[in-house]
Amino acid sequence: MLKRVALATAIAVALATFGRAEAYDGLVEKKTFTLPSYTTVGGQTIKDVKIGWESYGTLNADRSNAILITHFFSGTSHAAGKYKASDAAPGYWDAIIGPGKPLDTDKYFILASDTLVNLNAKDPNVVTTGPASIEPGKNEPYGTRFPIVTIRDFVNVQKALVESLGISRLAAVTGASMGALQAYEWASSYPSMVGKVIPVIASAEADGWLIAWLDVWAAPIRLDPNWNNGDYYGKAEPVAGLAASLAVVTLHAQHWTWANGATLGRKWAVDGKDPAGCLVECKFAIEAALANAGKARAATSDANHFLYLIKANQLFVAGGGSLAEGLKKIDAPVLLITSDDDQVFPTDAVNQTAQLIKADGTPLDHVKIRGGRGHLDGVVAISQAGERIAEFLARK
Amino acid sequence: MLKRVALATAIAVALATFGRAEAYDGLVEKKTFTLPSYTTVGGQTIKDVKIGWESYGTLNADRSNAILITHFFSGTSHAAGKYKASDAAPGYWDAIIGPGKPLDTDKYFILASDTLVNLNAKDPNVVTTGPASIEPGKNEPYGTRFPIVTIRDFVNVQKALVESLGISRLAAVTGASMGALQAYEWASSYPSMVGKVIPVIASAEADGWLIAWLDVWAAPIRLDPNWNNGDYYGKAEPVAGLAASLAVVTLHAQHWTWANGATLGRKWAVDGKDPAGCLVECKFAIEAALANAGKARAATSDANHFLYLIKANQLFVAGGGSLAEGLKKIDAPVLLITSDDDQVFPTDAVNQTAQLIKADGTPLDHVKIRGGRGHLDGVVAISQAGERIAEFLARK
Repeated sequence: MLKRVALATAIAVALATFGRAEAYDGLVEKKTFTLPSYTTVGGQTIKDVKIGWESYGTLNADRSNAILITHFFSGTSHAAGKYKASDAAPGYWDAIIGPGKPLDTDKYFILASDTLVNLNAKDPNVVTTGPASIEPGKNEPYGTRFPIVTIRDFVNVQKALVESLGISRLAAVTGASMGALQAYEWASSYPSMVGKVIPVIASAEADGWLIAWLDVWAAPIRLDPNWNNGDYYGKAEPVAGLAASLAVVTLHAQHWTWANGATLGRKWAVDGKDPAGCLVECKFAIEAALANAGKARAATSDANHFLYLIKANQLFVAGGGSLAEGLKKIDAPVLLITSDDDQVFPTDAVNQTAQLIKADGTPLDHVKIRGGRGHLDGVVAISQAGERIAEFLARK
Repeated sequence: MLKRVALATAIAVALATFGRAEAYDGLVEKKTFTLPSYTTVGGQTIKDVKIGWESYGTLNADRSNAILITHFFSGTSHAAGKYKASDAAPGYWDAIIGPGKPLDTDKYFILASDTLVNLNAKDPNVVTTGPASIEPGKNEPYGTRFPIVTIRDFVNVQKALVESLGISRLAAVTGASMGALQAYEWASSYPSMVGKVIPVIASAEADGWLIAWLDVWAAPIRLDPNWNNGDYYGKAEPVAGLAASLAVVTLHAQHWTWANGATLGRKWAVDGKDPAGCLVECKFAIEAALANAGKARAATSDANHFLYLIKANQLFVAGGGSLAEGLKKIDAPVLLITSDDDQVFPTDAVNQTAQLIKADGTPLDHVKIRGGRGHLDGVVAISQAGERIAEFLARK
């Protein structure tokens, strides 16, 4: 594994010679971490586990400057920079990652990894292991033979990656939404390995309300006859169900400020085609926009991975026991970043998490952002919290 | 039509002899109103339109004491009382309808009617006309040949019913959710016929946000192969899709206070069957509860009626033009009853409606209720607004 560290460092240094703006925000390389064997929290062993990762900045001599970024439900390890100069957009948190930015690559070695059962199984820049992966020793994907995995499993595989880089303690762990669940889990289950934690737009458990909504997200896939109880590899895939599920996610992560804006609202999907004109094909613009978003996202996603992610999120309570006990185990100072417009993790749930973390004296700062995009503000409006992140990380 | 009035009055008087408690809260009779022909706002003619209705209280000599109750998306005209003494529960707003109650049947003639395309097409106590109705002159249901109908169409058919009873002006119109949409429409489109209006848990248009969520409600039906583009009568019906759609509605109408309560929360559906044990069949209690609710509601519902209702709601703007113009036409004093916990009609949208109604001087009182059930509070916690309703109706 030291070879990999050396390589990463060499690449980072080499890239740094292109100048600051091009260094980490310019070109990023996807790397693959392999675990020959991993045994899940549920006791099942998966062979040849691979996850993708990328990094920005340079690991220092005593390997004390690493910050781990954990990704959201539909996200990937591509948190910053571009793979090629011609990429349409950089990674999702590029606004806060780079030289002189809040997650300052002049100071920190920023590390981002794909989870197990990553949604974007067909994205060539994603490396993950899940139901769509070929089962070792068989000539076909696992399908639903793949074991149920949990947020703790995601964290355990990340921990192996982190340790393979010779890092015994992370300066910080941060992530948005499902990424925040992983951050809470890191801080609760491996407190000696986490210096600080920055959970963004999430509470620290899936409560009944979230469990139910996640089931609503999953329902369209299950209704698509092509899903066929998860047995669809090499056959017609449940694209319609997956697209409908992704349309629900897209809407739920949004806010009425966006939906009712000038470009959507009550506008028709097609000029001259009144939504009153027919039952299904005559649509409003927002219906078409969500359907198109769902379809586009379905093209790189896998339906079983979606369902496995739903299950992992539903099963989540930080620390794996009661929420109060799990949050008591967190010792690292917490910077909690949320939005009161969030429709996925309501303010009441977020506040309960904050109270439980603070209950035993753990320091917690709570920063609110608001960008008119609801839950999605944790990704697209994260720079609103930039100064507070920089200040929090600089604090002794 | 006078014959029907006489009959209704006779029944009411006859029932009144049983004593107050038994009069309207005791036994209610479903009646049927028939329009030989109705032409929709969209210009299509439907023959032999039938809707059910019921009433509580007695129409006075000058027919000035009628209050119309318009029902919600999944509701019916059964607003109060029981059909038989052995009925498990009375109508949905029984808490505020009856002798001495806020909608006082000692003073008012309370009238409630089923809408066109009522969801509960298979409920023997519902009379409605929609895609599941036999098309006159054909030997089969309309299916998607049934014309698109709007909230204004619902109101126009109600208006014919009201006029058939010799009523030229309603003392008030009130309804919850989709019932409130009808109340707004009455007050905007027929201002001279509406004395007062009490919209409950709704704003006066479907904005982009609501249009999109209604599409999420409908998606499961469209994904069920048995839906077959609406052509399923006499064949296997899209029960799974309809049940999944109704599960979404059930959740959306609720609140996290309910979902996270002692009986649901993170409880397992089946003792000893850990949700971590398998992908689909190992459920949390709240998932099973919603699935069961969806299934139960699907048994009396029709999938095409569901989709036609979705369309009617999506198309709604009070008055049929811009929201501001539609609300300007409302002259009747308004008692607006909403809940800040409502997840279907958010407070921002409700407040916009209130502002626009008041903009030209129309008196508006805004009462907030809160019963821990979100949108559903408009049905189950309506008695919280009881005194304000009584006071509003008594006001000169």
